[in-house]
Amino acid sequence: MAVVGAGYWGPNLVRNFQSSPEFRLRWLCDLNLDRARQVLGRYSTVQATADYAAVLADPAVDAVAVATPAGTHLDVALAALRAGKHVLVEKPLAATYEDGLRLVTEAEERGLTLMCDHTYCYTPAVGRIRDMVRSGELGDIQFVDSVRINLGLVQKDIDVLWDLAPHDLSVLDFILPDNVHPVAVAAHGADPIGAGQSCVAYLTLTLNTGAIAHVHVNWLSPVKVRTTMVGGSKRTLVWDDLNPTQRVAVFDRGVDMTAPQEIGADERRDMLVSYRTGEMVAPALGEKEALRSMVEEFAAAVRTRRPALTDGRAGLQVLDILEAASRSLEFRGAVVGLRTGR
Amino acid sequence: MAVVGAGYWGPNLVRNFQSSPEFRLRWLCDLNLDRARQVLGRYSTVQATADYAAVLADPAVDAVAVATPAGTHLDVALAALRAGKHVLVEKPLAATYEDGLRLVTEAEERGLTLMCDHTYCYTPAVGRIRDMVRSGELGDIQFVDSVRINLGLVQKDIDVLWDLAPHDLSVLDFILPDNVHPVAVAAHGADPIGAGQSCVAYLTLTLNTGAIAHVHVNWLSPVKVRTTMVGGSKRTLVWDDLNPTQRVAVFDRGVDMTAPQEIGADERRDMLVSYRTGEMVAPALGEKEALRSMVEEFAAAVRTRRPALTDGRAGLQVLDILEAASRSLEFRGAVVGLRTGR
Amino acid sequence: MAVVGAGYWGPNLVRNFQSSPEFRLRWLCDLNLDRARQVLGRYSTVQATADYAAVLADPAVDAVAVATPAGTHLDVALAALRAGKHVLVEKPLAATYEDGLRLVTEAEERGLTLMCDHTYCYTPAVGRIRDMVRSGELGDIQFVDSVRINLGLVQKDIDVLWDLAPHDLSVLDFILPDNVHPVAVAAHGADPIGAGQSCVAYLTLTLNTGAIAHVHVNWLSPVKVRTTMVGGSKRTLVWDDLNPTQRVAVFDRGVDMTAPQEIGADERRDMLVSYRTGEMVAPALGEKEALRSMVEEFAAAVRTRRPALTDGRAGLQVLDILEAASRSLEFRGAVVGLRTGR
Amino acid sequence: MAVVGAGYWGPNLVRNFQSSPEFRLRWLCDLNLDRARQVLGRYSTVQATADYAAVLADPAVDAVAVATPAGTHLDVALAALRAGKHVLVEKPLAATYEDGLRLVTEAEERGLTLMCDHTYCYTPAVGRIRDMVRSGELGDIQFVDSVRINLGLVQKDIDVLWDLAPHDLSVLDFILPDNVHPVAVAAHGADPIGAGQSCVAYLTLTLNTGAIAHVHVNWLSPVKVRTTMVGGSKRTLVWDDLNPTQRVAVFDRGVDMTAPQEIGADERRDMLVSYRTGEMVAPALGEKEALRSMVEEFAAAVRTRRPALTDGRAGLQVLDILEAASRSLEFRGAVVGLRTGR
Repeated sequence: MAVVGAGYWGPNLVRNFQSSPEFRLRWLCDLNLDRARQVLGRYSTVQATADYAAVLADPAVDAVAVATPAGTHLDVALAALRAGKHVLVEKPLAATYEDGLRLVTEAEERGLTLMCDHTYCYTPAVGRIRDMVRSGELGDIQFVDSVRINLGLVQKDIDVLWDLAPHDLSVLDFILPDNVHPVAVAAHGADPIGAGQSCVAYLTLTLNTGAIAHVHVNWLSPVKVRTTMVGGSKRTLVWDDLNPTQRVAVFDRGVDMTAPQEIGADERRDMLVSYRTGEMVAPALGEKEALRSMVEEFAAAVRTRRPALTDGRAGLQVLDILEAASRSLEFRGAVVGLRTGR
Repeated sequence: MAVVGAGYWGPNLVRNFQSSPEFRLRWLCDLNLDRARQVLGRYSTVQATADYAAVLADPAVDAVAVATPAGTHLDVALAALRAGKHVLVEKPLAATYEDGLRLVTEAEERGLTLMCDHTYCYTPAVGRIRDMVRSGELGDIQFVDSVRINLGLVQKDIDVLWDLAPHDLSVLDFILPDNVHPVAVAAHGADPIGAGQSCVAYLTLTLNTGAIAHVHVNWLSPVKVRTTMVGGSKRTLVWDDLNPTQRVAVFDRGVDMTAPQEIGADERRDMLVSYRTGEMVAPALGEKEALRSMVEEFAAAVRTRRPALTDGRAGLQVLDILEAASRSLEFRGAVVGLRTGR
Repeated sequence: MAVVGAGYWGPNLVRNFQSSPEFRLRWLCDLNLDRARQVLGRYSTVQATADYAAVLADPAVDAVAVATPAGTHLDVALAALRAGKHVLVEKPLAATYEDGLRLVTEAEERGLTLMCDHTYCYTPAVGRIRDMVRSGELGDIQFVDSVRINLGLVQKDIDVLWDLAPHDLSVLDFILPDNVHPVAVAAHGADPIGAGQSCVAYLTLTLNTGAIAHVHVNWLSPVKVRTTMVGGSKRTLVWDDLNPTQRVAVFDRGVDMTAPQEIGADERRDMLVSYRTGEMVAPALGEKEALRSMVEEFAAAVRTRRPALTDGRAGLQVLDILEAASRSLEFRGAVVGLRTGR
Repeated sequence: MAVVGAGYWGPNLVRNFQSSPEFRLRWLCDLNLDRARQVLGRYSTVQATADYAAVLADPAVDAVAVATPAGTHLDVALAALRAGKHVLVEKPLAATYEDGLRLVTEAEERGLTLMCDHTYCYTPAVGRIRDMVRSGELGDIQFVDSVRINLGLVQKDIDVLWDLAPHDLSVLDFILPDNVHPVAVAAHGADPIGAGQSCVAYLTLTLNTGAIAHVHVNWLSPVKVRTTMVGGSKRTLVWDDLNPTQRVAVFDRGVDMTAPQEIGADERRDMLVSYRTGEMVAPALGEKEALRSMVEEFAAAVRTRRPALTDGRAGLQVLDILEAASRSLEFRGAVVGLRTGR
């Protein structure tokens, strides 16, 4: 096992692969050898290196975790796949849909595991939400509203959509039932600080069911918000990732037509709808670290040769939406259809 | 003084006009006389009536407060103006921009006060926000993000935009400096419950400065949120109307270019921007009831013949945006320019 | 019906008795006639008076609500009872246990209703809590912790215990099962601002079951907290009166002995206890105003001649604890037994 | 450098001493060698051992961090001091005041550093609070109220006071000005689950200034609260350790006598005191890990031979209060004077 990239995310991967009994971490590779050494610290037996070729040539390495900048994912991951290694890639899968597709194809042709580190999908909260949505506990999904805002480093190469929205989009893809998916997207953004790209962005997705999903990402907010609301015909849940004591709240309140459902559509329009209030339940969730579960899923996918829960295809779905959103931004919010939305 | 309309809002007006030393409330008028009587209760000397003509014929009535359904505002308010009465109208000013313009023109021609009851503008919080924005304390306004969501009565004649967004739009109009205003709007909505109109809607406004304002209104949310963030180049504030102990929080954190501002635009794009964290201040706000201040403003406008802070023109601005948003909804989010956005 | 006292609390009683169909409010009586007139306003048909004797002489008055300072409760209420009127008294019932007992005795001898306005007992939240505690849903009550703190008017005649703790003590009395009650109290206080009486106080109650109840009252806190936790052997609930969207939260988490319960006490002491985490449920509560329910209870008690839920005896229980607490304060926290704790 | 004890706290010390450039960690010692090995993991060059004598005999070890059960602190720390090592001890310093005094004496006689790991004192929040209190920014300290409650492991050898209150007491000792200190303590507790020792406890401290400090510790609370309020004559602050975005809030609201302060005490008692409301400021705090700062302080104390900020004497102060509180518990809340309270 090797980790490539000792920047922001790499140390987290190093720590989690080290504590996994299923992997033996041999290398931490970074072009900046000092940074790699610093990440490992003075007490580690893992080897730091700047020589990626040597890592790939090591027959004891059967898997590579890629945590380099998105622009390099194609080259780094492709080289690993061609060297016969299973590959885990930090989000986003690649810099473009086309690049991502090349990785997916390469992995599928070679029968190798290609997995996207969509970390949030492996939190206990999102796992529970997926179960509730897909089991029908919430009823039909009517709307999804996701907010991910806080002050942060304004990136020079990617805008706020590409930086933050992959989290929300990967979770959306993860929790929706198989027969529900986005078909089109519109995006609005602004760059009020002259950063050269959007620092505030709003993304509206139309689902094939007529439901709506909306994502608000913002680099300029002094308050940190990470909340996703999933509105269903039976129940509505709120996931507040920053509320450790009540991460998921399920509200048994909904909206009822005051008239019987049997009547026709025209009549229904004349009916008032009133709210009904029920109890709220905050389910008990485990405290397991998401990255640990993610590493276990990677191990299981490699071991059993089944696709990972967040495989390359899941990464492609995210890239498809991001590219469509970028196009929409260019055209002032025009609705853009998705490749995967069929 | 007379109040017309004993429905949802009327009782609040009755209570506040009764406690104002500047008005003498004589009538509560409603087509449903029983409802008017019930609102007044068994101990009141105010007279209930269903006869609006009699109210208008009463020479002791110099002002009328209209709290009837929006579709009747034109007729009720026009009749009052033509009878020489000053008029206060519940939001929205009228059912259409054209109707609203007729009221504004009539009032201006007759030299009568026409005021919109944009209640939130009279809260201590919004008053303070207006001061901070217009005095430049926040710097240039970079973005505004407003969320107003909760379970409520799904209306049969108006959609969620017309029901809830007037609050946010009237506040936006109220706090922005005179030289800053919206020029275009795009709206996305969904009706996932088959109500016949949008129950969830997102509205994106482009301001003449390039800044962005966004409004999220939702009838289907089990959690109640009423939060507006106003992001400035110097400070950012958050108004949380449901947090009585900290309604307004001003964050002295912002975004700095890591490179000097003197350099050219091209160079700036290569610079990273990093966040700086400063202290947060929650100013002390009075506890005065907004409706009481609104009634005082109406009295002052009538007395001094100056335009009210939220006069008919302010109501028109809101109607302009609502109509453009409705058109945008029809055309799947297309950007629609504003009449008042010049 | 008459209300006596037009100070802080009187206007609330006036408003609620006016809106009750079961009472006909005739008088608002206050030594300060102007204040009474001001409370009624310019539009009321209720009569203001400073002549309490005239009120009592009015045969149309069959009940009197007393909202005068505590020191006058004995005289005002006793006069009403002797005039054959049913009496509602604002908390505390009287200035001393002895005074309270005189009122209770007088009412019982005359077969008149004597009720204490323990308002919090009539909130939907406390009603639900009472049901849960008394039905056994929480299991055995193990501890109660109540905090009621905020900046307020420092009283010149009573300390913070007598000002604020009656709320917590009346709720405690209201929710506990019939066979559970306090037997002794210890109190600690401080007057760090030289007000002449305690401004911060802590009160520890021992219950006959060995459980503990604790009340923290504080006039000097800039943050407002009104939280009561009721810990049971099966569930624990938190009542947060300032959280309108989640006033009551019931936690299905508790403490389990890791060893079977059948073993002896000595063995059990060697066992570790570990926490178990379960879900949290926030029940749906109505929005009915507490004072309205209180007025209805008073009407029902008068009508049916049954004791009110918060009758004079409930008021006496509170006075007993307050007096014991005052004695404990004098003796630096010594434990003082209760008269009613047998 | 060596860490002794690989239980709950040991791993945190291992991690922080490893990342400190001022120490070279050579040993992790635990009677349970497997546990020590597990803590170090498969990739560490630090040596695990069960042989404490060998650790003390290692001349390259000049300091020992003790994270064993409190009952063993005396033996483990004394052996280290006698071997000429500087010693860091997890809280509490020892099982009794007498034991703690032996350690302090031994260290002082040998001129070795003896430091208590009062971790909370090294959080950025508490550092700031100490500055504000000691600089007089809050004015005179009038009250301190500390709550530390949550479900946890019920200990079999120590009660909730000894388990949790050391945190609050060490912070209190740390922030108070040099001329302010507790003189007496009263404690109330309950063991409603039959654990054999108090699971809920309340501790009231009298300070030499007449101010009051109160600590609520509770193992049975399903909600986690860690809040300390420090009330001053000028400002009051609230430290909420579980609110990462607003850990410290300073309220410029206080209590004013409505009459001039020059008048005599008797007259002042007749005056009412009313609250004044001012703004709230939440200062920006760094994000530095407390344990890292603690390790730096240990390094600095060893290097410069000055007493650590939380030296053995600070540990003794905590033990003094805990022992007095235990005695008070035995005597049902009787006030017990402190040895250090002179």
